[in-house]
Amino acid sequence: MEITKPTLLLNKEIVLRNIQKMVRKAKDHNLIFRPHFKTHQSIEIGEWFRDAGVKCITVSSLTMANYFADFGWDDITIAFSVNLPEIPKMNELAGRINLNVLIENKEGINALHEQITYPTGVFIKIDTGNRRTGIEANKTPLINQLLETIQKSPLLHFKGFLAHTGHTYQANSTHDIFNHHFDAQIKMKALKAWYQTRCPEMIVSLGDTPSCSICTNFDGIDEIRPGNFVFHDLMQHKLGVCKLTDIAVRVVCPVVAVHPSRNEVVIYGGAIHFSKDSIINIDGKPLFGRIMIREGEHEILLDERNYLQTLSQEHGILKITSRNINHFKPGKLIEILPVHSCLTANLMKEYLTTEGELIKMMPFI
Amino acid sequence: MEITKPTLLLNKEIVLRNIQKMVRKAKDHNLIFRPHFKTHQSIEIGEWFRDAGVKCITVSSLTMANYFADFGWDDITIAFSVNLPEIPKMNELAGRINLNVLIENKEGINALHEQITYPTGVFIKIDTGNRRTGIEANKTPLINQLLETIQKSPLLHFKGFLAHTGHTYQANSTHDIFNHHFDAQIKMKALKAWYQTRCPEMIVSLGDTPSCSICTNFDGIDEIRPGNFVFHDLMQHKLGVCKLTDIAVRVVCPVVAVHPSRNEVVIYGGAIHFSKDSIINIDGKPLFGRIMIREGEHEILLDERNYLQTLSQEHGILKITSRNINHFKPGKLIEILPVHSCLTANLMKEYLTTEGELIKMMPFI
Repeated sequence: MEITKPTLLLNKEIVLRNIQKMVRKAKDHNLIFRPHFKTHQSIEIGEWFRDAGVKCITVSSLTMANYFADFGWDDITIAFSVNLPEIPKMNELAGRINLNVLIENKEGINALHEQITYPTGVFIKIDTGNRRTGIEANKTPLINQLLETIQKSPLLHFKGFLAHTGHTYQANSTHDIFNHHFDAQIKMKALKAWYQTRCPEMIVSLGDTPSCSICTNFDGIDEIRPGNFVFHDLMQHKLGVCKLTDIAVRVVCPVVAVHPSRNEVVIYGGAIHFSKDSIINIDGKPLFGRIMIREGEHEILLDERNYLQTLSQEHGILKITSRNINHFKPGKLIEILPVHSCLTANLMKEYLTTEGELIKMMPFI
Repeated sequence: MEITKPTLLLNKEIVLRNIQKMVRKAKDHNLIFRPHFKTHQSIEIGEWFRDAGVKCITVSSLTMANYFADFGWDDITIAFSVNLPEIPKMNELAGRINLNVLIENKEGINALHEQITYPTGVFIKIDTGNRRTGIEANKTPLINQLLETIQKSPLLHFKGFLAHTGHTYQANSTHDIFNHHFDAQIKMKALKAWYQTRCPEMIVSLGDTPSCSICTNFDGIDEIRPGNFVFHDLMQHKLGVCKLTDIAVRVVCPVVAVHPSRNEVVIYGGAIHFSKDSIINIDGKPLFGRIMIREGEHEILLDERNYLQTLSQEHGILKITSRNINHFKPGKLIEILPVHSCLTANLMKEYLTTEGELIKMMPFI
């Protein structure tokens, strides 16, 4: 396929390697591996996971759960605290697959209890310090109340405690990631110790890519749910979680204009392709992507003084050193390593693999 | 239609009023009105423009041009400097409609000259100070060279000079907007004075929503191409360009959890719904949206101390004052005024009108 506009290029070999690595890690630590499919949102890439032995998955919405259920995934956790208006449709899905949902308040569990007519697994969502949402691990009176309602309902099955240690994304060092993970692990183990006699089947589930990638102690943890690791990105690289060679996606963009007087290059590729997530570059400014160019057979990653500096709707502006500006000509295709692969993939809606295959993602439903 | 998940609500009455207002402004100033359709990306809303007498439009990509051409729009400017790899497909479109494209360098005009087989209108893209892309107005030697190539090609028709005074979006006051517009106007008028004898048919075209909305002097300008005004948003409001009651879109989001201990509310509505554009709030922090709630028949806009403060992929976190926290309960639907309606619409891909009609946008092609 000839590339003429912004295109999300996917290196299948790297994806398979990233999947294999996490599968092996889960096996080595005796963990259930329930990967988060919100990163790739693709049936085809889902099959690569299946080929690696994965049987259960995580998604972030009912829409996504329905999409994957239609393609044979029958053990799905919606890792998003139950959205009350969607309970009737959620219940339909519970009628045909093993569905797990999350609750974190009385309104959630009461609505489930009243409306569910099919067996449904329920995790209690714990906040291990991320402060996005969930119940703090020491709030046992509330946990007890929720558990009581779950246990009195014949259709609700208590699955255990689930947390997303998302503050690892704000870490300033890998040391911080280890600390956050260790802290989450202690909290989850304490909950398990406290409730296991009452609920011997329960598990504890953790899920962020940074800690699942680099931490090595999963003692007391039963399940992991990382998602981003399948592609990785510059954010993970900045956190010290992956190598640049572990990043499996790039956005190919045509050069539109070169402005040597201000060391800038304009590309066709903007906020509607990359999203607006950024990391801070060595010059203290936001960086939206790093630049790969091809010279003949050679692929060259330009250093951080050359980077995607500004995004408007369709335009991107690259800051380029004088030394490198001659690499850029209108019409030339360059490749950008994205900052946040989940949001970039969500916008691009399809992949072109290095093997020339076009892979569609979940359509907007 | 029952709303159960993030939904882009569109007030048709406000849209029609915004369209009418700009149509009238163009008429009053004797300007060609060529609205930018990248904001709404919808055939249906396009028809509302047609009903108001609009016959020619602006788009930001060849994909979008093809989409609207398929629905009867036959006079389209692609307001994005020509993307060289797409010239063959662009030429196909030029075979069936009146197509105008932008050039700003020799590579662009030479490629067009060599590859075009159908009549094509060409604007020279001028940078009036935005420093995104285009030729500075005083670079007449380059302009002369481009013009020469256009004029020696029997299929290329010089349409005139086109600019986007996009730095009005960085204005700190409406005074700045007037200044930037006046400066752009002087530059464009000078170009017109200089080239009009040689090219008597040429026009000059300007296009940003801030200056088209509030400026009143369009002397010497022939065409305007605003886009965002159709919906407006908090960014336009912050710039002093529209009233809050001129904002035609809102994202309806279900409340997922309430955390009174830290004055926060979690909603189902994140970066994949709003995009990550923000403005700075009165507390100096990024604001991603403002909050409307309904109490019985009443619609209440909460003040800026209550706002959408954080976005992750699907979660949004509202900062809410203690006084207002009781308005929020899991399952309740609230409405968020978006910061940047173009990017929000681009992500949401469909509208639910206040009249209950579901309007689809351009699909990903």
